[in-house]
Amino acid sequence: MYKTIIIKKGQAVDTRFNLKDGAGSDAVHTTPIYAYAVCKLSTDTNLEGIGLAFTLGAGNKLVCDAIDYLVRHIEGMEINSLMANFGETYKMMADDPNLRWLGPHKGVVHLALAAVVNACFDLWAKSKEVPLWKLLIDLSPEALANTLDFSYYEDILPKEEAIALLIAQQQGKQNREKILEIGYPGYDTSIGWFNYSDDKVADNIKKAMDNGFTAMKLKVGAKDAGRDIRRAALVRKIAGDKATIMFDANQQWNLPQAIAICKELRELDPFWIEEPTHPDDVQAHVKLASTVDVKLALGEHVPNKMVFKNFIQSGCMSFNQVDAVRVGGVSEFILISLLSKKYNIPVVPHVGDMGQIHQHLVLYNHVSVGHPALLLEHIPHLREHFKFPVRIENSRYQTPQEPGMSSDLLYY
Amino acid sequence: MYKTIIIKKGQAVDTRFNLKDGAGSDAVHTTPIYAYAVCKLSTDTNLEGIGLAFTLGAGNKLVCDAIDYLVRHIEGMEINSLMANFGETYKMMADDPNLRWLGPHKGVVHLALAAVVNACFDLWAKSKEVPLWKLLIDLSPEALANTLDFSYYEDILPKEEAIALLIAQQQGKQNREKILEIGYPGYDTSIGWFNYSDDKVADNIKKAMDNGFTAMKLKVGAKDAGRDIRRAALVRKIAGDKATIMFDANQQWNLPQAIAICKELRELDPFWIEEPTHPDDVQAHVKLASTVDVKLALGEHVPNKMVFKNFIQSGCMSFNQVDAVRVGGVSEFILISLLSKKYNIPVVPHVGDMGQIHQHLVLYNHVSVGHPALLLEHIPHLREHFKFPVRIENSRYQTPQEPGMSSDLLYY
Repeated sequence: MYKTIIIKKGQAVDTRFNLKDGAGSDAVHTTPIYAYAVCKLSTDTNLEGIGLAFTLGAGNKLVCDAIDYLVRHIEGMEINSLMANFGETYKMMADDPNLRWLGPHKGVVHLALAAVVNACFDLWAKSKEVPLWKLLIDLSPEALANTLDFSYYEDILPKEEAIALLIAQQQGKQNREKILEIGYPGYDTSIGWFNYSDDKVADNIKKAMDNGFTAMKLKVGAKDAGRDIRRAALVRKIAGDKATIMFDANQQWNLPQAIAICKELRELDPFWIEEPTHPDDVQAHVKLASTVDVKLALGEHVPNKMVFKNFIQSGCMSFNQVDAVRVGGVSEFILISLLSKKYNIPVVPHVGDMGQIHQHLVLYNHVSVGHPALLLEHIPHLREHFKFPVRIENSRYQTPQEPGMSSDLLYY
Repeated sequence: MYKTIIIKKGQAVDTRFNLKDGAGSDAVHTTPIYAYAVCKLSTDTNLEGIGLAFTLGAGNKLVCDAIDYLVRHIEGMEINSLMANFGETYKMMADDPNLRWLGPHKGVVHLALAAVVNACFDLWAKSKEVPLWKLLIDLSPEALANTLDFSYYEDILPKEEAIALLIAQQQGKQNREKILEIGYPGYDTSIGWFNYSDDKVADNIKKAMDNGFTAMKLKVGAKDAGRDIRRAALVRKIAGDKATIMFDANQQWNLPQAIAICKELRELDPFWIEEPTHPDDVQAHVKLASTVDVKLALGEHVPNKMVFKNFIQSGCMSFNQVDAVRVGGVSEFILISLLSKKYNIPVVPHVGDMGQIHQHLVLYNHVSVGHPALLLEHIPHLREHFKFPVRIENSRYQTPQEPGMSSDLLYY
């Protein structure tokens, strides 16, 4: 039995946060304002569904306006019956004829979809009084598959194959549930924001290591390649040979530049190089990955399952950074995770939500989908704004126990 | 010498048009409302720049809001100095840090960019008192290249190569200018909208042929493949063996469906099959084109130069349907045309603007870029709303003579 909970009204809330002292800066965004386009679902109970999409700055308003339009599709529905066949509602929202021409399935309207979808999953978990990871892990493969929209995946991952994949992964599930006790490993993205001075980076690395982090990331993509090389070498030197280090160019290089600088950066033995060039250019990534022996991490700006399908098939993606607050929410995130598993590409999410939702999703990915428990990005800058902030101990995410997906903010 | 014209203010106008009796219907949009997100530039003279982006229905408002944000980049600028180096301003707008996270370069924000860019080109041509096609044809290759943003094209079409291509095409230019006299050939898209009855389609074909059209298009993509086959055969039968006929699925098929039905449709000798499946799925189109011997026309929903680059490189695109009111305006349209020319793929634009702007652009493409003068889509449903509507005689577009790009609407 479950509570009967009717979605009375959905509305968007435009929340923005100034960051201090260069935090959050990258090669493209030098003075970022982190923004959530929040979808808030009120119900006939005291429960609220909260779903986030992540953007930067003034454009957040556009996503909020699209949320206010999209929520009409779910107002009046009972949450458990909605989620019993959510894939169909997902497709109806994704293909809304008034918005489809604005994509399809990308940009403002797809970010709005992310927020609405996430609010539904949040409310669903709250209605069952369980954390999202537990809700997902406890679903049967069929029930999970019913929350996904397989359209245009008929040639690569039809529904029956997804269910078979999940059934096959039930072997070993109990063993993988240990992760719930030991905590999911995190890596520190905040040691090396683009605007930080070399001294500050050096200091941050030491602090991160004191806090138990053995994996960390530096922002690169400077106009002056020498700056990138110098700072990358600094990270390797201070973090030591055993540390896992990554470099993130935030799409700043064109292909010839990317090839040239990746040849130099690979000497520092990076675990991955992230977003080297334009996120729509699959073939440029194929060329880079086949020219320079580095592993590429991609997906932060890959808009939907179709482009992920092309990246996954192309062979250039070594780490899949799908982000549930950037693609069409938890539903599309899981579908992409399943396809990624079929191709044995680990999912290491970008965390536009600062890790709040993704701590649930990586647990699900590991326990039920059989992805390795590799790493989850840690960015602490917004933790004071969340009701249930991420808890990290000795660099490991502590498994959240509160009902829902932990994305409730303290104020709206 | 040219007039000095300062852009005082830019503002968006949300214009929508109901269509009657099934006109405009396709497999995805059964009751379409055609909408223009218009960017209107007021100046210190009586000239206005008018730029269009095309969408369907309620989402148009989002594009208008994004236009109102974007125009700040050009307010206060003098049009001729702006256009002398427009590629830089284009890049600045495309990469606006407040909007870039909403793409990049796709969806609502990119459609807004289209409207702003088109308004600039319109005003530029009006300032010189020439039609857009003449402005473009008379520009030197270097001056033309300065209006384009070559970023991320360094590996495939650097600026120097684009200039060299244009210089090479100066041979034969005079001969190709004959098109200005004889008019550019049109094809009729309005014979076979999705909701039209078989009888109405039959009747429309006869009317089109009476009006001199020898090329026409049918909307397919029905849930019942039998309907598609029946109607496609009807078109071939009535139009005759010599007619050029095309079938447009508006993304409705998944890959297995597309392969199955294209095998049947090819027996009717179509000139092309358009948008068979999801427009982001390059690899599905590659698979289809290599499995079934049909030519694919693609691009109506390809969002930007990067995805066009991938389609063009992939070899699956036989006809390039780039649309200047869907990608980043005239500037990105021309860049994509140049790349398409390098790969010998003809440009046959989708006309979200009903052909108003594209009649200028195909003349430029033929005369200066050396593309064949193949076909330009003709859709008459909004002609009553334009100040200088398209003039078609015996299926040929009559070369527009009014200054600008002919996209002024009668009211705003």
